[in-house]
Amino acid sequence: MAHRGRGGEGLPAAMMGLVRELSRLPGIGEKTASRLAFNLLHRPREEVIALAEALLEMKERTSLCSVCFGLSDNPRCAICADEGREHDLICVVEGPADLMALERSRSFDGAYHVLHGALAPLDGVGPDDLKLRELMARLGNSGARPVREVIIATNATVEGEATALYLAKLIKPLGIKTTRLARGLPVGGDLEYSDSATLSSALSGRREF
Amino acid sequence: MAHRGRGGEGLPAAMMGLVRELSRLPGIGEKTASRLAFNLLHRPREEVIALAEALLEMKERTSLCSVCFGLSDNPRCAICADEGREHDLICVVEGPADLMALERSRSFDGAYHVLHGALAPLDGVGPDDLKLRELMARLGNSGARPVREVIIATNATVEGEATALYLAKLIKPLGIKTTRLARGLPVGGDLEYSDSATLSSALSGRREF
Repeated sequence: MAHRGRGGEGLPAAMMGLVRELSRLPGIGEKTASRLAFNLLHRPREEVIALAEALLEMKERTSLCSVCFGLSDNPRCAICADEGREHDLICVVEGPADLMALERSRSFDGAYHVLHGALAPLDGVGPDDLKLRELMARLGNSGARPVREVIIATNATVEGEATALYLAKLIKPLGIKTTRLARGLPVGGDLEYSDSATLSSALSGRREF
Repeated sequence: MAHRGRGGEGLPAAMMGLVRELSRLPGIGEKTASRLAFNLLHRPREEVIALAEALLEMKERTSLCSVCFGLSDNPRCAICADEGREHDLICVVEGPADLMALERSRSFDGAYHVLHGALAPLDGVGPDDLKLRELMARLGNSGARPVREVIIATNATVEGEATALYLAKLIKPLGIKTTRLARGLPVGGDLEYSDSATLSSALSGRREF
């Protein structure tokens, strides 16, 4: 019949457009996108405008810090600009989300360096695809205050481990102390449900009381 | 220590703003909102702008059809404006999402009427909160083509059933045929896993081959 499909699925074009854009987001299928679109339709106008503006503002203003390559609204991020932090202690992470996780733990007072990835030769990610050259430059000419320690905080995955080993080897000739995060039982973790690799790390890394 | 919290959780203000706005959406907590924000950060600029524009456009352009109260970009929706459909057959639904579901089934050729709710006295939703008066007006003066049938397609919930019964009683004096959707086993459904109410409906509504 001629009319079929003409009215779409009964959804106006502007709603369809929003559903299409929302379903591009990760983990959001067409059904969730429709639900979100209906919710937004019934929201006060100002709230929808606030969301649209937050999107544009994020894209407009967020860039990478010129020192640590973390996310920043300014050429230098809040952490790098903070005189109260120990800038001779650098924690190397794979991505901005890792930096955030460490900040949430409120147990690190130094500076960061975000690699933006990990070595993964099978996926075509080599040393030149990471912010490695920038890290080495930073370690080489730290001016007045030489870096005293680099904490390598890459993920405990195959790629993260490979990146950590590669980095440790690169930094060694500079004579800078290089450490890595402890491996072991997660806090709250049950021995019974821990995998062997974790238990093995917990055993070999055991500490005296 | 003075610096703690100054840099937020290490997330720039514009990203924080976006996370805050995204987490207002239903079913999206702060963690999912962060994940979406990071994804959007790494998307091409045009895609983020397209999403923001789709939001604004939806809010700007989507309103209710003056005839059926379905969602529409125009004063009259595509279905009501479609001369190819049977406008003397009106299907009454609770919300725009129900209309969409029926359109997706591609098995209805008539017009709709969206009530925007169902009777729920306990929640303070009475007849005046629904587009009931508008439906009765539509049935009363259908001009050249009088309405020959009203299909009541409210949900199979307590509220939906109550609304259907109320509507049927309202329409009866007008002498218009009033029908409701069949109840029974869903297509693909297993007897073993069907609830008693559904099985009971399926039995009482049984049809000859």
